[in-house]
Parts: sequence; C-alpha cells; structure tokens
Amino acid sequence: MHQHKIKLGIFGFGVVGQGLYQTIKQTKGLQVEVIKICVKNKSKKRLADKKLLTFNKSEILNNKEINVIVELTNDTEFAFEIVKEAIKRGKAVVTANKKMVAGHQKEIFDLQQKFHVPVLYEASSCGSIPIIRNLEEYYDNDSINAVEGIFNGATNYILTKIFDDNKSYSKALKEAQEKGFAETEPNMDVGGYDSKYKLCIIITHVFGVFVKPEQIFNYGIEKISDFDIKIAKEKNCKIKLIAFTRKIGNEIFGAVFPTFVKPDNILYSLENEYNGVVVEGAFSEKQFFLGKGAGSYPTGSAVLSDISALRYGYKYEYKKYFQDLNLKFKDDFLVEVYARSEHKNSIRKNDFASISEEYKSADNHFIIGKIRFSKLTTSSWIRKPHVNVLITPENKLENLN
Amino acid sequence: MHQHKIKLGIFGFGVVGQGLYQTIKQTKGLQVEVIKICVKNKSKKRLADKKLLTFNKSEILNNKEINVIVELTNDTEFAFEIVKEAIKRGKAVVTANKKMVAGHQKEIFDLQQKFHVPVLYEASSCGSIPIIRNLEEYYDNDSINAVEGIFNGATNYILTKIFDDNKSYSKALKEAQEKGFAETEPNMDVGGYDSKYKLCIIITHVFGVFVKPEQIFNYGIEKISDFDIKIAKEKNCKIKLIAFTRKIGNEIFGAVFPTFVKPDNILYSLENEYNGVVVEGAFSEKQFFLGKGAGSYPTGSAVLSDISALRYGYKYEYKKYFQDLNLKFKDDFLVEVYARSEHKNSIRKNDFASISEEYKSADNHFIIGKIRFSKLTTSSWIRKPHVNVLITPENKLENLN
Repeated sequence: MHQHKIKLGIFGFGVVGQGLYQTIKQTKGLQVEVIKICVKNKSKKRLADKKLLTFNKSEILNNKEINVIVELTNDTEFAFEIVKEAIKRGKAVVTANKKMVAGHQKEIFDLQQKFHVPVLYEASSCGSIPIIRNLEEYYDNDSINAVEGIFNGATNYILTKIFDDNKSYSKALKEAQEKGFAETEPNMDVGGYDSKYKLCIIITHVFGVFVKPEQIFNYGIEKISDFDIKIAKEKNCKIKLIAFTRKIGNEIFGAVFPTFVKPDNILYSLENEYNGVVVEGAFSEKQFFLGKGAGSYPTGSAVLSDISALRYGYKYEYKKYFQDLNLKFKDDFLVEVYARSEHKNSIRKNDFASISEEYKSADNHFIIGKIRFSKLTTSSWIRKPHVNVLITPENKLENLN
Repeated sequence: MHQHKIKLGIFGFGVVGQGLYQTIKQTKGLQVEVIKICVKNKSKKRLADKKLLTFNKSEILNNKEINVIVELTNDTEFAFEIVKEAIKRGKAVVTANKKMVAGHQKEIFDLQQKFHVPVLYEASSCGSIPIIRNLEEYYDNDSINAVEGIFNGATNYILTKIFDDNKSYSKALKEAQEKGFAETEPNMDVGGYDSKYKLCIIITHVFGVFVKPEQIFNYGIEKISDFDIKIAKEKNCKIKLIAFTRKIGNEIFGAVFPTFVKPDNILYSLENEYNGVVVEGAFSEKQFFLGKGAGSYPTGSAVLSDISALRYGYKYEYKKYFQDLNLKFKDDFLVEVYARSEHKNSIRKNDFASISEEYKSADNHFIIGKIRFSKLTTSSWIRKPHVNVLITPENKLENLN
C-alpha cells in the first residue's frame, strides 16, 4: 500500500499542540515529521525545539516541504484564512476548530473539490469519538433516521455534579473550568454553541445537507433551577444537554436543547466529561459511541488519527451530499416541552398546540405541552431570565403536515 | 470518486440473507444487484425471484458477471471452500461467518495478499458495531493497550434475565432461543466459543497477531449458580461474559471468561442482547462502542456496509501486522479469580500464588486469589461440574516477569 511521508506545519501550540508534538516524537513508525510550528506569543516558553518555532505564517504556508497543515488556533477567522491558503497551495489540512468548520462548511467543501486537497476535522466533533469517519464510511448506505447525543463534555460534567453531587451551578462550572473541561468563555459550552457547531458538521455527514450555525436553535443549561431539578428527579429523569437531528420524510430537523432523559435512554448513564452519540439507523437500529469529549488527550488523539489517515490518502467523500437525496433543513416541527417560570402568566399558554400538564405554586409555574418549534424559539418569553424550557423525555418530534 | 457496480452471488438464504435481499431491493442508490442465490434445501419456499435461485455453487463461482460473493451459510468448511474458490477467481467476499474466519485467518489473509482480492467480515464480529473497521482505520497509530467487551448477545440476554428478573438459567436460555438470539446449539454461545471466535478476529486487527481459536481459553456461563449470583450481588457486582485482550510489554494476553463487573465499569449497564466493546488506547483513553449483537438486522446491516465499502474499493490493510511490532500471544499470566465448589477440597489451594479470601459453609466453598492462568486452565478441578470460576472485578492481569 502506498504511503505518503507526512511533513507537518502546526498552527497553535497550546495543550493539544504540545501533546501532539510529544506523541509524534515518542511513537515509532508514525512516518510523521514536524517541520515548523507557528505561534503568536513571542515571550512564552515552549517545550519544543527552538528551530521549529516561527511567528510568521508564511514560513509554513510557503514552505514547499510541508504537505500537511495542522490548525489548532482558537481564532476562527485567522484559522479559516490559514485553511484557505493551505488548500490553494495543495497542502492537506487537519483541524480541531469546530466553530471555523461549522461556519464555513460549504466553502471548505468547495475548496476541497476545486483543489483536490483533503481537509479532515474529526477532532472538531465529540473529542475522541470517530463519529464523522463512521458516518462517512460505515453508514453511507444505511439510511439513518436520527443522530442524537451529548456533544459537550463541560456541560455534561456540570450537570453530573449538579445532579449526582447536589452542587450549585456556579460551583460545578468553576470545577469544570479548573479541570480544563470548560472554555474560559463558558457561554460557548453552557449556552449550547459548542454542541451546535458539532451538530452542524455532523448533519453534513449524516444527511448530506449543509446547515449554517445560525439556522440551528440552541438553548443552554444556565437557567436550570433547583425546582427544575426537583421535577426531573420526581419524574425519575436526569437533565442532559442534547443535540439532535432527525429526518421525517424529506425534512431534517435539528436543535440543541436541555432535555429530560429517562433511565432507559443510554445517555442517562453517560456522566462527567464523556460524550456520547446515538446513531439510529433504519436497518441497524441504535448504535452508541462513547468517549471522552473534553480535555487535550481526546482531541490530540483525533488529530493524530486524521494525520495518520492522510498517509493513506484518506479524504471525506461527502457521499450523502452527492447522492442528492433532496433533503431540506427545516426549523419547524412540533415538540413537547416543559416550560417553567417563576412569575405568573409569563409563559403564553396560547402559543401551545396542546397542554398535558399544568402546575402552579407561589414560586413556580410550569406547563407541559406541545408547541411549534418556530413559535417556541421566537416567543417573547423563552429568553426571559426567570423562564426555563426543557424538552420532555420522549422527544417525539412530529412534522407539521 | 470511482465506483464499482456490485453484482452479488449470495450463499445461504436464512434470515440474514432474506433481510439483505429485501433491503437491496428497497434501497435506492445502492448500485447493488443480486445475480444468483445458492441454497441447499430444494423444497423450502423462498421469498425471492425463482430465476435467482440455484442449488449448484458453480453457477455462482463460474459466473463472470458476479464480482462479489456474500457468504452466509452456517457450514464452516463449505464456507471456507467458497471463500477460497471465490478469491482465486478474483471475486471479492463478504462474510458473517466468525467461526470460519477465526479458524482460517492466516490463510484468508495470505489469499488476499496473493490474489489482491478483498475479503470483508465486519458482520462476523459484534453485530452492527463497526469494530473491525474502526480498529483498522481509526486506531492504527494510537497504540492500543487493551480491548475488552461483551461480544455475545445471547449470553448477555441470559445473564440479564438471571440477574435482573431472577429467572433460572434454563428459562432464560429458552427465552433467548425463542427470540432468535441464541443458536440452536447453545454451547456455541453459553460456552464462550462464539465470543472466542470474535476475539480471535479482533486480536488480528488490534495487535496484528494471528491467533488460532485453540490458543484462546474460553470458559462459559453454564455453571453459574444461585450462590455465585448471591455473592456477586453482595459485592455489588453483576456477572458478564467478558472477552478481553491486553498487551503488557511485548506480550498479548486474551481469554473469554465470566467476570464480576462493578457499576463503575461501562459494561455493567449493558443489558439484554446488546454487545459492547471498550477500546483502551494509550492516548485516547477509553472509548466505547455499543450496538445490538444478536438477531438478523444487526448482522444484515454490517453485511450491507461491507458490500457498500467494496463499491469504493475498500479492503483491510492489516496495518498492524505489517508494522511488525514483534508481539507474541501468550496464554500465561497472573489473574485473580473467584473459584467456588459445592464439594469440600475440590479446588486445589496449592495451585494459587496467593489467597485473599476464603469461605466455607455446608454447601459452598470459595477461594479468591491470584493464580497463573496456565495453571488454572490446565487444572484438574476447573472443568468439574460442581466447580465454577469467575474473574474478579479488577481483572488486573499481570505478566509473570
């Protein structure tokens, strides 16, 4: 079998980059060589050979010896510039930058087609779980009905601490940040943005439809109250931040939403910083992938797998896109939710198509009922600080036809 | 991307074959055509176009139009003949026959190398879990320390019924057979042979070492008694039939053994007919794959994925074998076990290297201690009907050096 010798130019040298560098040095038979590492901060001390370091991106982009760029910065627009320039120069790209990939999916796809250069981004989605590779390679024929999962390790860690250890939200968040699971800008995690970027990328490889992050609604875990937790426990549920996409007919739905999860759902027992992805195939029924989703090792491992795959000329085929199944992403469907407010009459009952439960006390009101998703997400009340909304355990989506 | 049109000759038309045939007919865009189906029994009614059926294997093997053979018989030696003849004629092979593949791995590998024809057998191992593909493609660089899991759906179903529903062994077995999970010859499942064949195949793709089924010791679940279950529950454990392989230095260990499993092990909550595989990588830590392991759909789904992969020229690269890591399979290591007998002095205490617990009552005696695996498996007492042996929860193997 033909192998390419990989000569790397790395952008960014944080924990992932450093772990990658160490592993490449230590692992025999990898056939990978680090040629240059581009960093921003000139004063920081680095655990790499000084000769490898540069502060000028051109020293990597214009180096003809380098055939693979590893992009590990946290600057989305700079990252996209690097990717574009690399592809135009015929250099393959490996990136872990989910925000950049999700935001520029179609452009990255087009550039790959035009210049016949692979861009791999397994590390962008669900840490060490090889979900994109599996969706690309293993499920191409098996018509998939749905993919759902816990895509963010930090929020799952926080929810675990809140639920199992009765910790407060702020204490649990601080702990997650100390452990390196949560980003310094926690809204990315707890607001559901990180999960949404991953969902965008996954939808492309599940259904062959390019969806922009702006098209997907995300709701975070910040407003979960002691009362919500009490209700969840009474209903024998946990609360998890679930990202999901589902096909009904020719329509694709998708969102990121905190959800009541019952013990018979495999995601119920997925705790701490773990990520899990459930793939529901028409033929193979449910399959479950689990792995650590946060931290430098899982990401580094995924980056290394992509680099190694390039040795054998691997590229994403985007088979489902080319199958042209005429699927459309829609942000409107019927969903059952629990909507809770600390104030009376905050939640507009008329917005609901049907109501199955209603509760009122001095401090808390809630409604459980079915509502059009477009009505829910554009409602005046969903963004109020004293209102919280969760999807009910069944998460049975219905289309509106 | 170049695609081959697949023209199939199928051997065997049981539930898996029929499901496959139906799915191919129903799924658009598969680019797969069934040319001939070879069956044994002339009198059975079949749900396929009569023109497709044949009773003569040469009508498939000598048909130049057919480029892929799907082997779904339950006759091991006939199956191997078919595979050999197909490869020699340049026809790719997809098979679900774990006993055949495990028993002839090196020969099948050699034939593939010689005739440059792919043989895919994802369906032979752990149903719908794409474990071989992942070990081949995704983990090639990441040095893996261990793989362990529940590889047999029937035994897991039986153990679930015994543990959670307090059913007797015989009743649980009957139920598993009625549901189509257990083979008609239950010893294949409950004796651990089925798991062992899968482990053989998996070891090749984890460590690049060809191991014969005879080299791997398997112990079944048939002798688990009410007392064993009571002890397991007292220790807050369940009993699961675990197949495992682990690398320590340059030595590879592997066996199939009923094992006490604690709640912190992900396999503890894996119930019913599900299979689960834990991959422990040096870098990516633990990853977990879960899917249904028994029944016709999971197998059919895996067969279809392999057929589809052939459209894109996929083949196993056996990268780890070619990396020539000089690993050796050894059947000797130190292991901690629980050995129980209904008779006094049945278990030879002197065989143990150390003993940490000992229990005696009128009806039951047990010892928990460390023992050389080779001493355990060749002991006079392990095969006695009134003696049962389980591996303790830690399953901490030690090599003997």
